[in-house]
Amino acid sequence: MITSYARPCIISLETIKSVLPGIDLFNAISNGFIEYSKGNAVIPPVGELLFDSPPGEVHIKYGYINSFPYWVVKIASGFSDNPSLGLPSGNGLNLLFSKTNGNLSAILLDEGYLTSLRTAVAGALATRALCSCKESKVGIVGTGTQGRMQLEYLRKIIEVDEIYLWNRNISHASLLADELKVEGIRATVTPDLEDLCRKCRIIITTTPATEFLIKDSWIHPGTHITAIGSDTAEKNELEPSLLDRADVVVTDSISQSQFRGEVFMATKAGLMKTRQPLELGALLNGECQGRINDRQITIADLTGVAVQDLMISYSVYEQVKSLKNKCNDY
Amino acid sequence: MITSYARPCIISLETIKSVLPGIDLFNAISNGFIEYSKGNAVIPPVGELLFDSPPGEVHIKYGYINSFPYWVVKIASGFSDNPSLGLPSGNGLNLLFSKTNGNLSAILLDEGYLTSLRTAVAGALATRALCSCKESKVGIVGTGTQGRMQLEYLRKIIEVDEIYLWNRNISHASLLADELKVEGIRATVTPDLEDLCRKCRIIITTTPATEFLIKDSWIHPGTHITAIGSDTAEKNELEPSLLDRADVVVTDSISQSQFRGEVFMATKAGLMKTRQPLELGALLNGECQGRINDRQITIADLTGVAVQDLMISYSVYEQVKSLKNKCNDY
Repeated sequence: MITSYARPCIISLETIKSVLPGIDLFNAISNGFIEYSKGNAVIPPVGELLFDSPPGEVHIKYGYINSFPYWVVKIASGFSDNPSLGLPSGNGLNLLFSKTNGNLSAILLDEGYLTSLRTAVAGALATRALCSCKESKVGIVGTGTQGRMQLEYLRKIIEVDEIYLWNRNISHASLLADELKVEGIRATVTPDLEDLCRKCRIIITTTPATEFLIKDSWIHPGTHITAIGSDTAEKNELEPSLLDRADVVVTDSISQSQFRGEVFMATKAGLMKTRQPLELGALLNGECQGRINDRQITIADLTGVAVQDLMISYSVYEQVKSLKNKCNDY
Repeated sequence: MITSYARPCIISLETIKSVLPGIDLFNAISNGFIEYSKGNAVIPPVGELLFDSPPGEVHIKYGYINSFPYWVVKIASGFSDNPSLGLPSGNGLNLLFSKTNGNLSAILLDEGYLTSLRTAVAGALATRALCSCKESKVGIVGTGTQGRMQLEYLRKIIEVDEIYLWNRNISHASLLADELKVEGIRATVTPDLEDLCRKCRIIITTTPATEFLIKDSWIHPGTHITAIGSDTAEKNELEPSLLDRADVVVTDSISQSQFRGEVFMATKAGLMKTRQPLELGALLNGECQGRINDRQITIADLTGVAVQDLMISYSVYEQVKSLKNKCNDY
């Protein structure tokens, strides 16, 4: 007879980073999307909290997959004035609870890192699933943490020969270009976003823009875009008419895309009337068809789903449990 | 220049219980309700997660008060099969974050205790504000953890001479009666809920009932009821017509009562058409009038608001900080 709850395993960011190399995140997160699109997950609408002064934004994502023994609550914040205080803007944590008795099993003090990571993995999965991938020139729009991570994880699963970088602050893009060159990768900074769109058949957008940056007319046949930046009802990176023009539009969550992201922006503009986007999990599971030729334009609009948080937290926790003494005591 | 986030203060249930005697919870939680009803708080709708097998329910409540330096996320679960495993059904934790930079300031591992406690304090505040309180016979309907705590906190702020106890399982009520008698309090167990309603002018309901237990016709003039049990769209303790008949109906959150609790049940039944309930914070602040004579029937319908979670977590954290070495290391 158990008479009290087990203490939660508290996992620091340092421990999380140390166990990640042993985890196949692509497989874990792909499985999460597949279960979600099969209807085997319970994911309520995203909780949101906004702050004025200083400006801040919090997302609370939570839910479970029927066949997994845990439920997750993920809290991720962005406080945009933080860099001026010497702090990163992102922060957050993941909590894993037992589906058997509700007990708090693990506190993952990831400071927002797991949210960035699962987003990068999802972006890479969507890009690989949809790109023509014959030409391996990749354009990265926005060179912050997420732009860097998208590139890092994309390079793990597709061949990338040349990279074009755009950022509102060009010196910021130059820093990344210099780092990539040290690694022997061809990286070019461009202040001209239209030029980037002309040169690259894979484009990844990761900005916090609230007015679209990429014009419909700039996008050439054969291009795939993975749009990461917009995850609210306010943010917008792509001109809405581009969503209508695209041959294939995929979202990580059809239900969420009714309220946030690029698909939401297009429907709000009265577009996307005669079509529903495909869902990433169905695409990854081969239940629907993505790109069918090298001339098509494809878009993946990702707003982030709690199944990603569940799968990454679960994977880290299982890895920590398999290694002794990795739970921090308190 | 700060270059990384401060580590959160991790506060165990044992530490929480040790610092509570130094805190004026009635004042803290009353202030939370007052700020809320003044419109000085941002409290999004409650997040909810339901489980089938084993049955479970999770509430996620979150938000902030403009003038306070933290925002809270409170997670509280109830897994009703737990007692058969030797575990309490309730569990949960509170998280306090900085409004300045989003950093996680404190993890309160209260295992659901702070949720029970802030609910008991709110119930006592509402009862004191609305009861005629000339007769001090109190009826407790449902003698679980919350029934006991309602009584404990009510007795701290009003005179209680005699107590009537009802529970679906009568032996459960007898246990509490025996404990109260040891303390020298007159406590009578009754299997007849109508009898309890006849005898008591203060009634506190704390059951998980999903079909009403208390009939309109059983309630005598002068009675005050604090209804605690129903905090979802499914739970229901009071016959809906009683809400229409009552002279004063107060809820802790007018917006939440559109979707959960006794007021929701009454409006769903087509009642409460010509009146809006009063809000507890406005009543506590003297901005609206509650009971005006000893013949009125008054009802407080409490579904629990995140301002309570914020105020109790903040109070505990401040108390812990003021005492050295009370944050557990990890």
